[in-house]
Amino acid sequence: MSEIVPGLEGIFVAKTRTSRVDGEAGELTIGGFPVERLAPAASFEEVVFLLWEGRLPTASEYRTLRNDLAARRALPAETLPLLRRAAQRSLHPMDALRIGAATLSLSDEDPLANSRGANTERARTLIAAFPTLVAAYAQLCAGKNPVEPDPMLGHAANYLQMLNGAPATAETVRALETYLNTVVDHGMNASTFASRVIVSTRSDMTSAVVGSIGALKGPLHGGAPGPALDMVFEIQKRAQISGQPIAEEARRWAEKAITAGERIMGFGHRVYKVRDPRAEVLGAAAARLFADREDAALYRDARTVETELRSTLARLKPTHRLETNVEFYTALVLHGIGLPANLFSPTFAISRVGGWTAHVLEQIDDDRLIRPRAMYVGEFDRPWTPIEER
Amino acid sequence: MSEIVPGLEGIFVAKTRTSRVDGEAGELTIGGFPVERLAPAASFEEVVFLLWEGRLPTASEYRTLRNDLAARRALPAETLPLLRRAAQRSLHPMDALRIGAATLSLSDEDPLANSRGANTERARTLIAAFPTLVAAYAQLCAGKNPVEPDPMLGHAANYLQMLNGAPATAETVRALETYLNTVVDHGMNASTFASRVIVSTRSDMTSAVVGSIGALKGPLHGGAPGPALDMVFEIQKRAQISGQPIAEEARRWAEKAITAGERIMGFGHRVYKVRDPRAEVLGAAAARLFADREDAALYRDARTVETELRSTLARLKPTHRLETNVEFYTALVLHGIGLPANLFSPTFAISRVGGWTAHVLEQIDDDRLIRPRAMYVGEFDRPWTPIEER
Repeated sequence: MSEIVPGLEGIFVAKTRTSRVDGEAGELTIGGFPVERLAPAASFEEVVFLLWEGRLPTASEYRTLRNDLAARRALPAETLPLLRRAAQRSLHPMDALRIGAATLSLSDEDPLANSRGANTERARTLIAAFPTLVAAYAQLCAGKNPVEPDPMLGHAANYLQMLNGAPATAETVRALETYLNTVVDHGMNASTFASRVIVSTRSDMTSAVVGSIGALKGPLHGGAPGPALDMVFEIQKRAQISGQPIAEEARRWAEKAITAGERIMGFGHRVYKVRDPRAEVLGAAAARLFADREDAALYRDARTVETELRSTLARLKPTHRLETNVEFYTALVLHGIGLPANLFSPTFAISRVGGWTAHVLEQIDDDRLIRPRAMYVGEFDRPWTPIEER
Repeated sequence: MSEIVPGLEGIFVAKTRTSRVDGEAGELTIGGFPVERLAPAASFEEVVFLLWEGRLPTASEYRTLRNDLAARRALPAETLPLLRRAAQRSLHPMDALRIGAATLSLSDEDPLANSRGANTERARTLIAAFPTLVAAYAQLCAGKNPVEPDPMLGHAANYLQMLNGAPATAETVRALETYLNTVVDHGMNASTFASRVIVSTRSDMTSAVVGSIGALKGPLHGGAPGPALDMVFEIQKRAQISGQPIAEEARRWAEKAITAGERIMGFGHRVYKVRDPRAEVLGAAAARLFADREDAALYRDARTVETELRSTLARLKPTHRLETNVEFYTALVLHGIGLPANLFSPTFAISRVGGWTAHVLEQIDDDRLIRPRAMYVGEFDRPWTPIEER
């Protein structure tokens, strides 16, 4: 008798050229580049091109893609009333994004076409419109009117301008872009896999990506970095009250949480057994972002907290290998950029849609239905009883 | 080195009490009942209850579920303008259903709750609203206004009334109900698996089901039974022109198609190696539906065509075991009910959402992230070249 493979752990389901996660070595390769080389140097548009085409764009290809994405930022006319209603009902921002993204089929040039080319067009529209959807929803939730996209700006700069109603600084744009590049793809995660399963029936790009948004919403996907930052704030507050150094308060926090058997937010990852390489990249991005700022102490305190938590975890849970994960510095970078915590997950989606679309194109090329099996554990041959006799 | 498992074929990914497919024996068990015992006897509401609760409802439980579903048929106010726009743009009915279903989060009582109970509520709303979405879209595409749901009618009868603007006969309701019950669940098919992957991150019921709609749209899912019926019509037409018996024309058709290496629609299935048991159930439903009708000849001709195609396939492709699949009689039953071919797939979704929701509840109980692996076949350690040097 065959056995269940829980969570499909260890099962290889597809070949990919998008990214490789080496959890033992703590290495992440994106489109052939070590993440620490690619993420701080590239624009998000370059990384999307890389994932789709397998190489970096020339200057002319880059301009073409950038302009094309900029031209696709507007939403269908029917989408804004939906987002307005979602804001009135205080929907989860990921649900609002899912509802909005589903409507992007309304702006399809050729809705019934299903060639690879038609699906690449859809991928461009999805990537371009995600920031518009997220920013519009954030504005509506704040009781404001959405800010029009600015076609002169790049992807990241335009997102920030739509969120804040004012131009972003070069430093925050760079920090956001580094974040978007860092988390754009990460092997066969659950949301990416959802896209592949959906399109494996020869469905379309939009259907696949809408499914992925749903998967990314779930907290097991790691889309909730807010609590890691809350912990830093809480430790800061305690140090202020007690007059003790941050390091001392962080140690106490960790000892208490570990004794109580609680999970420490921002540490531990199913795949990485050493420090998540993305924590490295985002830690460095945070260092640059917070340098010379009024709130530079937050960065220093977060570093101190990380150091103390790591050493306390290593001391009290030596066999667990609980190292800093991507959430810890994601929260710090996104907070430093000025994003509220409820936009962390949708901003993750704005990045990861780059990976989803690249995997969907690979799956279209592979053209193989993904259909595992279920093990039936129910009854057989039940007798039928008419309802009046039950 | 580990190997790719193409399409995850043969991999068991979860336990289930919903259904079991025995492809060698040609047996389908749904909630413990052989499909041929359950489908023609039960109402769709009873089958949904069975899949969710693992047993048939009492008369009182049945009334409660039926009334609750009837009360959830209305759409959010913002949904109809979207469907109207979708109709103007001639979107695929499955895309319209996906867009509309995504908006059902707007009628959530408690949008941020994510308990099992909250997701069961969502399941009820999804099941209840699918027929409203499909019928409204069909009416709008025909330039008519949607017909209001009638809370006095059962699920199947109300769907037909919304589609036709007039009450359905008991015979067509029974035929539709038998169809809905027959295809409500079928092991770990791709759309069901998509739901499970999505909710495995602890996302929600609506997100999962919206993903499944996307998967069901794809032609590899078998959601396109229209061509099987077109073939019967074509063979009828040829017989009329040639004056030859239907059987003779069917044999010629099959011989020509097989010689040309073409696939014969309505025959062959990835799982079933003998006659699909659903073909049996739907064939019997078609016999009852067409009995004494003016177009009873269509049923007789379809039977003749099936017989001739089977015997010709067995003669010319003896090793292929190409038997009648569910599409052949699905098309005949749905046509007999009065549905146009472009509503076959969305009507399939109206049924299968029963299975999706049941699997999602099982997956919520299992609470295990589904995350397989990808095999990276790209480059490593590429050097970064600034864009002006490319």
